[in-house]
Amino acid sequence: MITAAIVGASGYSGHELLRLLARRADVRIAGVFARASAGERVDALYPAVTGTVDLTYAPFDPEALRGVDVAFVALPSGEAMSAVAALQGVAGRIIDLSGDHRLQDLDVYARTYGHAHVAPALVEKAVYGLPELHRDRIAGATLVANPGCYPTSALLALIPALAEGLVEPTSIGIASFSGVSGAGRSAKVEMSFAELDGNIRAYKVGVHQHTPEIESVLSGVAGAPVTVSFVPHLVPLTRGIHTTVHARLARRVDRAEVESVYRRYYAGAPFVRLRSKPPELRGVVHTNYCDLAPFVDARSGQLVILSVIDNLLKGAAGQAVQNMNIMLGLPEETGLQ
Amino acid sequence: MITAAIVGASGYSGHELLRLLARRADVRIAGVFARASAGERVDALYPAVTGTVDLTYAPFDPEALRGVDVAFVALPSGEAMSAVAALQGVAGRIIDLSGDHRLQDLDVYARTYGHAHVAPALVEKAVYGLPELHRDRIAGATLVANPGCYPTSALLALIPALAEGLVEPTSIGIASFSGVSGAGRSAKVEMSFAELDGNIRAYKVGVHQHTPEIESVLSGVAGAPVTVSFVPHLVPLTRGIHTTVHARLARRVDRAEVESVYRRYYAGAPFVRLRSKPPELRGVVHTNYCDLAPFVDARSGQLVILSVIDNLLKGAAGQAVQNMNIMLGLPEETGLQ
Amino acid sequence: MITAAIVGASGYSGHELLRLLARRADVRIAGVFARASAGERVDALYPAVTGTVDLTYAPFDPEALRGVDVAFVALPSGEAMSAVAALQGVAGRIIDLSGDHRLQDLDVYARTYGHAHVAPALVEKAVYGLPELHRDRIAGATLVANPGCYPTSALLALIPALAEGLVEPTSIGIASFSGVSGAGRSAKVEMSFAELDGNIRAYKVGVHQHTPEIESVLSGVAGAPVTVSFVPHLVPLTRGIHTTVHARLARRVDRAEVESVYRRYYAGAPFVRLRSKPPELRGVVHTNYCDLAPFVDARSGQLVILSVIDNLLKGAAGQAVQNMNIMLGLPEETGLQ
Amino acid sequence: MITAAIVGASGYSGHELLRLLARRADVRIAGVFARASAGERVDALYPAVTGTVDLTYAPFDPEALRGVDVAFVALPSGEAMSAVAALQGVAGRIIDLSGDHRLQDLDVYARTYGHAHVAPALVEKAVYGLPELHRDRIAGATLVANPGCYPTSALLALIPALAEGLVEPTSIGIASFSGVSGAGRSAKVEMSFAELDGNIRAYKVGVHQHTPEIESVLSGVAGAPVTVSFVPHLVPLTRGIHTTVHARLARRVDRAEVESVYRRYYAGAPFVRLRSKPPELRGVVHTNYCDLAPFVDARSGQLVILSVIDNLLKGAAGQAVQNMNIMLGLPEETGLQ
Repeated sequence: MITAAIVGASGYSGHELLRLLARRADVRIAGVFARASAGERVDALYPAVTGTVDLTYAPFDPEALRGVDVAFVALPSGEAMSAVAALQGVAGRIIDLSGDHRLQDLDVYARTYGHAHVAPALVEKAVYGLPELHRDRIAGATLVANPGCYPTSALLALIPALAEGLVEPTSIGIASFSGVSGAGRSAKVEMSFAELDGNIRAYKVGVHQHTPEIESVLSGVAGAPVTVSFVPHLVPLTRGIHTTVHARLARRVDRAEVESVYRRYYAGAPFVRLRSKPPELRGVVHTNYCDLAPFVDARSGQLVILSVIDNLLKGAAGQAVQNMNIMLGLPEETGLQ
Repeated sequence: MITAAIVGASGYSGHELLRLLARRADVRIAGVFARASAGERVDALYPAVTGTVDLTYAPFDPEALRGVDVAFVALPSGEAMSAVAALQGVAGRIIDLSGDHRLQDLDVYARTYGHAHVAPALVEKAVYGLPELHRDRIAGATLVANPGCYPTSALLALIPALAEGLVEPTSIGIASFSGVSGAGRSAKVEMSFAELDGNIRAYKVGVHQHTPEIESVLSGVAGAPVTVSFVPHLVPLTRGIHTTVHARLARRVDRAEVESVYRRYYAGAPFVRLRSKPPELRGVVHTNYCDLAPFVDARSGQLVILSVIDNLLKGAAGQAVQNMNIMLGLPEETGLQ
Repeated sequence: MITAAIVGASGYSGHELLRLLARRADVRIAGVFARASAGERVDALYPAVTGTVDLTYAPFDPEALRGVDVAFVALPSGEAMSAVAALQGVAGRIIDLSGDHRLQDLDVYARTYGHAHVAPALVEKAVYGLPELHRDRIAGATLVANPGCYPTSALLALIPALAEGLVEPTSIGIASFSGVSGAGRSAKVEMSFAELDGNIRAYKVGVHQHTPEIESVLSGVAGAPVTVSFVPHLVPLTRGIHTTVHARLARRVDRAEVESVYRRYYAGAPFVRLRSKPPELRGVVHTNYCDLAPFVDARSGQLVILSVIDNLLKGAAGQAVQNMNIMLGLPEETGLQ
Repeated sequence: MITAAIVGASGYSGHELLRLLARRADVRIAGVFARASAGERVDALYPAVTGTVDLTYAPFDPEALRGVDVAFVALPSGEAMSAVAALQGVAGRIIDLSGDHRLQDLDVYARTYGHAHVAPALVEKAVYGLPELHRDRIAGATLVANPGCYPTSALLALIPALAEGLVEPTSIGIASFSGVSGAGRSAKVEMSFAELDGNIRAYKVGVHQHTPEIESVLSGVAGAPVTVSFVPHLVPLTRGIHTTVHARLARRVDRAEVESVYRRYYAGAPFVRLRSKPPELRGVVHTNYCDLAPFVDARSGQLVILSVIDNLLKGAAGQAVQNMNIMLGLPEETGLQ
C-alpha cells in the first residue's frame, strides 16, 4: 500500500490529485493539508466528493507526513520551496507541482519569480518531470519538479521538431489558450463568470513565467539556445489548454517525414496521441492525454503544431500521478485511465 | 432617404445588416431576399425583432431591387457573383459580403474557391472595402468587395507593420479564434452546442480560403510578396474574433516606435482603437471597433500583435455599412455607434 | 437638454444606465459617482466605451448634483436610502434602483433587509416604478423605486392573471433563472467562471429579499393576500432572467380567454410582447422588452406563465430610463430602441 | 465475464454506456450497433476514446447478439420496440433506454408517442427500472424499461413526499432545466451553439412525453391519481438536469420531519445524496448521483424540492448499468464510482 499526502490540497490542482488518488485501491491518503481551509471537510468545499472522500483539511505540519511514500506539494510558487525543504528526510519522495524547482539557473529563477530561491541545493537535485523526456531520470528521482501546464502542451509539441532540427530554434511563436481553472480557485473580479463569458484576452504577453521554463528545456533538447515568443490567453471554458505553435522550417520536409519523426519520438509514450486532423480540446478533457498534430505549411515555409491537454490532468495532477507511478516502478498508466 | 436592399438576408450577417439599417431614420429598406426562408416573416426566424422589423423575406428577383441606392449581397461565395452580375445597372451601388470579388487574380480565385468566376470584368471593377486602407477608392466605387472576417482582424493588425517594414514579410504566423456565428446559421452536428461547449479546435490549417485574401492585400501594402501561415480555430462563444500574430522583427525597434507607427497609421480611422494592454474580445462585441495592441517581444526578436473584432459587425455587416456610408458621402460612423 | 447623474455608476447596472444615457442627444451626464473606483476613468473599468464615454468617477457629493434634472441611485440596498435622503431638494427627480424604497411596510422592510429604514417619510413618497402598472403615478412622482429584476419578470407574468382572478392567490410557485451579472460586479469564488460554467444552483430558497416585493405588489393587484414560493437560481450565462410560474387555475379557462386577458392588459405597454410560443431569453437580451407567454395546462388545472427579460435593462437600467422618460413627459420608448 | 452489446451505440447515451462498460474488467463488449454510422470506427466519431476503445459500429443484426448476457437498446422511442422484440430469446437480459416500455397503459403510450405498440406483451413483462423504487423487481427482470432523464430527476424528488402524503397530489408544478446533450447528437439549427449560447427556452409546455411517465409512477406510489404540470427547458450547458418542484403541503410539517422522511426513504440508495443546501448541478455531472434537497416554504404552504442529475448517467447510461448490476446480482455501484 502506497501512502501519499497532499500539501495545498484545497486548490483545483490539489483537489484533482486527491480525486485521482482517492479512487485507487493501492494508495492510502495519509493527509490533506491546506491553510485557509484548515479544519473544513473536503466535501464542504467540493460537494461532488460527498460520500467518496471522508477527509478534513489540516494545517501543514511536516511531522504529520513522516514516513509517507510520496508527498505532493501543490502550493503556489514561492511557498512551495519552503515546504519541500521541510519535507527532506521526512517524506520518501516529493513531487512539487509549483514552479519552484523547474528552473536550474538560479538567476533566471530569481528574475522570473521575483525572489531568490531558499534552497538552491534542492533545485540541483530536482528532476524536471516530463515523462516523455526524462522517464529514466524520474524513475531514480526523490524530488520531481512537475512541469507547468503551458510548458507541458508546448514542449510535447516542439521537442521532436527541435531534437531533429526540423525548425529554426529562434523562430518560434506560441499562442496558448487556457481554460479558467488554470488561474486557480480565486476570488477576483476579472475571473468572474460575467467578465469571462463570451470573452478572450491575452495576458503577460512575452513575459509569462513559463517562458524561461519552455526555453530552458527546449535549449537542452536542441543543444543550442532556443527562444520562443509565448502568448497565453484566457478563453471561456473551464478545463483545457489549446496550444498553436508556428515555427520556421529549417529545411524542406513533407508531412510524412514530420509524422514519422513524431511517431518515432512518442512510440513509447502512452499519453501522447498523434492525430492527422486538428485535435479537439474535448478529446482530452478529463483525461491525461496530450493530443498532437504537426502540419507542414509548405507554402509559407512554416511548421504548425497543435497540441491539447487537460490543464489540471496532463498539465498538473495527472502528470504528477504519472511521475509517482514511474518513481515507484509501477506501470505509467496506473490509475490514469 | 437612402433605399437599401439585402440579398441573402436570413443568415447571421444578412440579419445583422438588417438590424443596423432598420434602426436608421435615413434608410428605407426596399426588400429582404432569401431563398429557403422566402415567404416567412423576419420575426419568425428572429423573434428578437418582433415589433421593430415588419418585413417578410422574398425570393431574390433583381427587378424588385430596381433603383435602390444600395444593394447588399450576403450570399455564400460562389452564389454571390451571379447575383452581383444580375444587379448591374439595376442597383446604384453594390456591396458584396461574400468572397467572390476579393481576389483580383482569377487563377487564385478559381484555385481557392474551386470554381471559375462567372463575371471577371466585375472583379476588376470591385474595390476591396477595407476603409482603413482604401477609403478614397471606396468613395468612388460602385462595387465594393467587403472583406472577410478573419482578414479584417489580421490585416488591421499587420498593415502598419508591413507598410513600414517593421517585420519580415515571410515570417508571419496568424492564430485566429472565432466565435461560432462565423460559421453561419447552420444545421450541422459539429456546430451543435453539445459539440462546441468547452471545446476548441483548429480547422483548414494553412488552407483556409482567407489566406490568399490576406496575402494579396498585404503584398500590395508591403510592395513585396508576403506569405502567412494562417490557422483558424473555433472557440465556445457566439460572436467575435481574437487574432494573435507572430512576426519576426526586421530591425531593432522599441515599443514606443511601434506604437507611434500604429498611431500615425490609424489617426483618421474612427473604428480602430489602439490599446496598451491586451484587448478584450468583449470590448468590441456588438460594436464596429477593432481594438489593436502591438507588443515588441525583444528577447525573441518578434512582434506580437493582438487584434479583436466582432465578426458580424467590423467583420461583416458593420463594415458593410461603414462602406455604404463612405460610398454615399456620409460620415463614416453614421448608424454605427 | 436633460441633465442626469448616476450615483453608484461603476457596477453593472450603473454602467448600463450610463451607456443608455450617453448615447442620447437629449441628455447631458452631469456626473458619475462611485466609491471604490473614484478617480478612475470609466473606460479603465469598461474598455468597451473607450472613445465614446469620456468621464471619470468621482466620490459621491450631493452638492455636485445640485440642480440636475434626474439623479439615478444605483447603490446597494441599505446604502441607497442615505444617498436618496441627501439628494432631497438637490436633484429634481430621483430614481432609486435599490430595494430601499420598494416596500411600503417598514416592518417588512426591516425584516427583509436586516436594518431599519433611515428615512421613512421617503418610503411613503416613493412610487413603485413598474410602468405597466403605475404609469400615471410615475408621471407625477419625484421619487421612483425602480423594481427589482426578479420582481419585474414575475410581476409582469402574474399581474393580469391575479387582476382578473384567473388563479388562486396562494397557489403560486415561481422558479426564476438568472444570468450571473445579476449578482453584480463582484470578487467571489462562487461567482468565478470555473465555479459557474456548466453549473446551475438555487439559492435563498423561499427567503430571497424579492419575495415580499412580489407579494406586496400582487396583493395590491389582487385585492387580497397573495403568497408566492419564489426560488431563484443562477445559470451559466451573463445576462437575462427566465421565469417560470406555476399557479392553480381558479376557474375553467381556455387559452384564447387567457391570451385575450393578457393582450388587453398590455395593450398600451410598448415593452411587453405576448408570445404564442415559449419566449427565448436571447430574444430580449440587450433590449428593454419583456416577452411573455401564458399557457393553460388544463389537464393538471394549472396556469403556466413564462417570462423573460434582460436583468440589466428591463430588470434595472432600461426600466429606470423608461421611468425617467415617463417622469419627464417624454415618449416612454425614448432611447430604448 | 459478462458479455454485453449496445444497439444504438453512436448517440450520446449509447456512447456513454460504451465508455462505462469498456473500462470494466468484468465486462466484454460483444458488439456495438448503429445504423447511420455502421462501418465507422467508434474513435472516428468520438476521438476521446482513441487508444482505449477499439471497435467498429456494425448494422444491427439480432443474430450477432445471440447469447450475450445483456443487450442495451439505446434507440429512439418507436424504433426500440422492434429491436427489443427481435432480441427475445436471443439476449439473456434486455435494458431498453427508450420510452417504449415505460408506460403500462397502451392507450396512453399510443397517445403519447403517436403510434401503437408493436409488442404489447413485452410492455407487460417490462419492469420500470428506477432502482430506488423497484430494486427487487429489477433483480428478477429480463426486460427493464430504463427511466427517462427528466422522470428520474422528478421522481426521486417526489416519491417520498407522495408516499408519505406530505403534498397534495394534484398541486405539483415541475420546472426542469436540461443541458443540450439531452436532445441527442443532432444536426439542427436550434441546437447549434450560436442559438443556445446565452439562451434559455422552454418547450413542449405541459405536453412533453415524459409527463405521463412521471404521473403513472407517482400515481402508483401515492395510491391515487397524481397530476403534474411539467415544463422542460433548455439551458446553455452540455450535461445535467436541474429540477425544481413546487407542491402544496398537505399538512403542517417542519423541515426536520421532511428530512427524516427523505433520509429514511433513501437509506439504502447509494446514488441518492440528501443535501441541506441547494444542490449544485456540477456536483453530480460525470457521476451517477442524484443530489436532492427538500425545503419547507412554510409561509406559502409549499414544499420545494430541488434535484440534480447527470442526464447521460443517472438519467440514462449510468442508471442502465446500475440496473444491469442489480439484474446480475452484482453490487449496485459496480463500475459507477
